[in-house]
Amino acid sequence: MNLKKDERIDDLEYSGLKIIQKENGFCFGIDSILISDFAKEIKSGSVGLDLGTGTGIISILLAAKTNLNKIIGIEVQKDIANMAKRSIRLNNLQDKIEIKNIDIRDIEQKSLIERGKFDFVVTNPPYKKQDTGKTNKNEYKYLSRHETTANLETFIKVTKIVLKDKGSIYMVHRPDRLVDILELMRKYKIEPKKIRFVYSTIEKNPVLVLIKGVKNAMPFLKIEKPLIIYNSKGEYTDEIYKIYCKNK
Amino acid sequence: MNLKKDERIDDLEYSGLKIIQKENGFCFGIDSILISDFAKEIKSGSVGLDLGTGTGIISILLAAKTNLNKIIGIEVQKDIANMAKRSIRLNNLQDKIEIKNIDIRDIEQKSLIERGKFDFVVTNPPYKKQDTGKTNKNEYKYLSRHETTANLETFIKVTKIVLKDKGSIYMVHRPDRLVDILELMRKYKIEPKKIRFVYSTIEKNPVLVLIKGVKNAMPFLKIEKPLIIYNSKGEYTDEIYKIYCKNK
Repeated sequence: MNLKKDERIDDLEYSGLKIIQKENGFCFGIDSILISDFAKEIKSGSVGLDLGTGTGIISILLAAKTNLNKIIGIEVQKDIANMAKRSIRLNNLQDKIEIKNIDIRDIEQKSLIERGKFDFVVTNPPYKKQDTGKTNKNEYKYLSRHETTANLETFIKVTKIVLKDKGSIYMVHRPDRLVDILELMRKYKIEPKKIRFVYSTIEKNPVLVLIKGVKNAMPFLKIEKPLIIYNSKGEYTDEIYKIYCKNK
Repeated sequence: MNLKKDERIDDLEYSGLKIIQKENGFCFGIDSILISDFAKEIKSGSVGLDLGTGTGIISILLAAKTNLNKIIGIEVQKDIANMAKRSIRLNNLQDKIEIKNIDIRDIEQKSLIERGKFDFVVTNPPYKKQDTGKTNKNEYKYLSRHETTANLETFIKVTKIVLKDKGSIYMVHRPDRLVDILELMRKYKIEPKKIRFVYSTIEKNPVLVLIKGVKNAMPFLKIEKPLIIYNSKGEYTDEIYKIYCKNK
């Protein structure tokens, strides 16, 4: 395996899957695990797009959890896209997953990705607005966390362009951006249909939000029961344990 | 006490408060209890408006729970407004609460209510869109539950008109209308700042949502921990017990 000197291989603890990550870069977190689980309702034979795929984690998990036909992971950072490609080969998922080193901002203008054809989009976009929060000297981490390249509106606008009629987007984000997300989805004719909040414990405010939107759908929102990570003993709840650890 | 033959007096089980309700009309529910608790952060000396006050339940509870200066309850149904007035007198709260028999839709055009002067608005608007769901032969119930008169947009538009700069709205509604509420608040320059979902039990989807918006505020949304009504034994949770039963 071609592993660069600043990289390491981690076990995904799910069906024997592995992933290459930067030693000091942005490493996948529970958000990627949870959004791939939230999206696993996609139909057999679906074709999808993973916007801002990073290490490829969500595409790899979705390819393992579902019977999708194909998923294309879009990643703007060349190094990271290259690393994701190697992770795909490491897991022998080349027939299911394709990685493209593209800037999401270019999809609107250029003919890089087919339009109106995808069954689903899955995305874990950067959480922080540009120029907010602490800046991170590590460029990989900074680009993965901040809206330096594409911002939330671009992610949603591009989703509208690539999805087919009634196609779905699954997004994970921070709860404090909820109003922005819902407002932008409505703006681009993507109706929010399902939301689930993720709580570290039942006694704390949610740390993440999982949102499903459907292109050109009628309004009716279902908010699901809380997804709680730790029980009162500080252990994973049964639901999280089932999502996290399959065939460990 | 002037009690009409289709009315009864109920104990609010809070500081000895009582309320007059129709025997066969719309009776207050946990939504009114919870929104008055959610809004009890209002500052001492505040002046507010209760849009669609109905029996006056929210105004009565807020007057008891806070040190507000004055709250005006707006009610379109003449009979119900009259009943609310009698409940105010029954609780000896005439100096704190005023009931006006006004159609909310008239506030925008006519000079019925002062503009840009109120510290807060509290509201439990009708949950159902006009012509949706089962129609209710009981006119009182139908008008209380459906957007036959003012709809959600009118409630929010009027809120914008009456609130002062940085004044707050506290609204309780059904979770399936969340996107509409947030979109309309943004449209009328009321920034959603705090949301809390109410769950019957932790294993079920939320039944209500409590939302605070602030006029002309900067965006930053805080979603609070779940408010759960029943514990696994089917009893009120400690938090609900404290909200519900004071000095019973």
